[in-house]
Amino acid sequence: MAQSGRGSKASPHVVIVGGGFGGLEAAKALKNEPLRVTLVDRRNHHLFQPLLYQVASATLSPADIAAPIRHILRQQRNIEVQLAEVSRVDLQARSLDLEGGSRLDYDYLILATGASHSYFGKEAWARHAPGLKSLEDALDIRRRFLLSFEQAEREPNPEARKALLTYVIVGGGATGVELAGTFKEMTSLTLPKDFRHIHAERARVILVEAGHHILPSFGEGLSEKALQSLEKIGVEVRVGQPVTEVDGQGVTVGTERILARTIIWAAGVAASTLGQSLGAPLDRSGRVMVEADLSVPGHPEVFVIGDLASFSHGLVRPLPGLAPVASQQGRAAARNILASLSRKPRTPFRYRDRGTMATIGRGSAIAQVGPFRLAGWFAWLAWLFIHLMLLVGFRNRLAVFLEWLFAYVSTQRRARLIVGTCGNHADVDAPPE
Amino acid sequence: MAQSGRGSKASPHVVIVGGGFGGLEAAKALKNEPLRVTLVDRRNHHLFQPLLYQVASATLSPADIAAPIRHILRQQRNIEVQLAEVSRVDLQARSLDLEGGSRLDYDYLILATGASHSYFGKEAWARHAPGLKSLEDALDIRRRFLLSFEQAEREPNPEARKALLTYVIVGGGATGVELAGTFKEMTSLTLPKDFRHIHAERARVILVEAGHHILPSFGEGLSEKALQSLEKIGVEVRVGQPVTEVDGQGVTVGTERILARTIIWAAGVAASTLGQSLGAPLDRSGRVMVEADLSVPGHPEVFVIGDLASFSHGLVRPLPGLAPVASQQGRAAARNILASLSRKPRTPFRYRDRGTMATIGRGSAIAQVGPFRLAGWFAWLAWLFIHLMLLVGFRNRLAVFLEWLFAYVSTQRRARLIVGTCGNHADVDAPPE
Repeated sequence: MAQSGRGSKASPHVVIVGGGFGGLEAAKALKNEPLRVTLVDRRNHHLFQPLLYQVASATLSPADIAAPIRHILRQQRNIEVQLAEVSRVDLQARSLDLEGGSRLDYDYLILATGASHSYFGKEAWARHAPGLKSLEDALDIRRRFLLSFEQAEREPNPEARKALLTYVIVGGGATGVELAGTFKEMTSLTLPKDFRHIHAERARVILVEAGHHILPSFGEGLSEKALQSLEKIGVEVRVGQPVTEVDGQGVTVGTERILARTIIWAAGVAASTLGQSLGAPLDRSGRVMVEADLSVPGHPEVFVIGDLASFSHGLVRPLPGLAPVASQQGRAAARNILASLSRKPRTPFRYRDRGTMATIGRGSAIAQVGPFRLAGWFAWLAWLFIHLMLLVGFRNRLAVFLEWLFAYVSTQRRARLIVGTCGNHADVDAPPE
Repeated sequence: MAQSGRGSKASPHVVIVGGGFGGLEAAKALKNEPLRVTLVDRRNHHLFQPLLYQVASATLSPADIAAPIRHILRQQRNIEVQLAEVSRVDLQARSLDLEGGSRLDYDYLILATGASHSYFGKEAWARHAPGLKSLEDALDIRRRFLLSFEQAEREPNPEARKALLTYVIVGGGATGVELAGTFKEMTSLTLPKDFRHIHAERARVILVEAGHHILPSFGEGLSEKALQSLEKIGVEVRVGQPVTEVDGQGVTVGTERILARTIIWAAGVAASTLGQSLGAPLDRSGRVMVEADLSVPGHPEVFVIGDLASFSHGLVRPLPGLAPVASQQGRAAARNILASLSRKPRTPFRYRDRGTMATIGRGSAIAQVGPFRLAGWFAWLAWLFIHLMLLVGFRNRLAVFLEWLFAYVSTQRRARLIVGTCGNHADVDAPPE
């Protein structure tokens, strides 16, 4: 049973590693085909990552944006889902090493293990400035954020209290902007009435971007609109200066020292290390440079998709790490496997950009759809609608819709729970690191 | 600011320790009174414990049954909420020692710190058989339960697979019965379609009760009905035999050895250790034997309520550890403080039993209201309605109602997420302990 890859060889065996947007779409595209499919993930759930910042900011609960992978695929009879971590790809043997010692053979392999944070070689920063990639990360950030107000409420020293109420978000991409917007909303609308000694509305939320523009992929016009929206709700934005130091007391931006006890890392992205075991050329972020058909050079039976892939055929710059890119690549890889099996030519991948968007706060978002650029209320409504539609499962959609409606009308957040992770309340009285 | 207990002594200072049912009701009862009130809890949230088993069984999310204490009390201007752990009561100095070194003085003290599990001196059992008292406990049990199926799915050895699919719940009180019922429902209705190699519906759920009846407080008639309902849905119930051994391989019940990898402890209750620092007489479970007015003998300014109190004035046996007892005692203690302040006589506490109920599964519950005894569908509907009404906050009520409706109609559970606590996926490939 643990050896499901070694069973009958009657039908070809496709192994998909990773149950994110790419892996899930690849699996679905192989439905009803005469193949055995195994999807391996180290988590039991698919995660709707674009809304992860809302778990971090106590608006949504984990179950609102995640669903068990095997449940999503339960009706697909040719698939098997395994909860396991892949430690190595053996291209020669066409086999995967799983943590714990077992192996899984494949005829075709789709690698979709995504990316995590990169601290650009400053790994020591990680403990002071957590990133946001998993549900655990989101719950950790939520705990740090909420605890800082609790600590500030009983902190007699004004300087220390100020540092507790200063929040620095490093990285002006979509995650950083969305997190900064929602943090500021919470400090100015959700939290003030709950405290007696602090003025939560005076808390500083600082967004730091090393480049010259936040949300650079949207072009200067929209980027400027987003900046104005952020500043209007009170977020301080620093652009053009890299962070040069992060420690338990704060960050250094260029030459400026900012004392802050809560720092969030939304800057660097590093591809999953599994790509390294392929021996294929990697880009600067460790992404695998794939062929036009998404396969690994020299290994037409191995595909790499999503955030782990660097695809630049016919493009000025490689495709960005976005959910729609991953989904489309998942379907394309599946189609190319089916083409090979029926001895038809493969199709080069082509990304259809249906638009990108980012939300800044209540009633404010920017969107870029082909030649159209939108900002403000209408973009925000479009953002809400599209993200609701993209969520897996009717039930999640309804739950999230109701949470949003409640949050918008009441300015409250229902998931403001500080739940310990390791030990019980180690954080509560811990001294500043 | 950390010294809020040492400020002006103009109005008397009431300190409440614990934000459960008792502490919260006491705080609310002191609203608009000329008092300063401080509520101290080591958690930031009030927890609706009667539904905690539904978080453990992946039906509800933490945010559905918990809310920040300071948010619940935000409109009450005379109250201050502190996130802190009390380590000791200094009755002579009328002061509390808080973890971290600070102190908090009081004029009146209400202790409502509740209870946790007792392993009857077998503390080594705790790691194999977690109890269910906090959100962390519930998420831990959920993870163990869901992981057991993942491990069984890829376990080639039939004996080991059988142990993975055997669930033993120790303790036939309300928590044990409700957990057993909902676990069995999940194995027979929710999970079967998701797996390819195991038959989840054949999983064994065994409820072990050392006494001769499950739910003994309901009387023999209802207890028998509950037993029949459990057996009808497939739960195996063992009564009259104590558990004599718990280890990583299973449990020993009387002389019978049951191999099981998931064991839940719903048996013993031990009062919070804070009661010991009072020097007052304690009962067998460590509960403080209180006076008729709920105060500590010799200390009319200190009250003990809820699961931490043992109240037996005019009763055959002490009051049970139930939410309504705690709530009523909270209000009574507050009233007695107000009486003392206006130099009126205190009122002895009298519990008004408005009934107790327990649910067994889909469409099945038992209820006892005064002389009336109910079982079956109507009792279940009453259970649903009453628990919805008792939840804090309209939004939680609606969210829980929708989760229940969805779970009932679809037989699915939306919160089936395995979220790691310490480290990332330490559990996934861990060998059996």
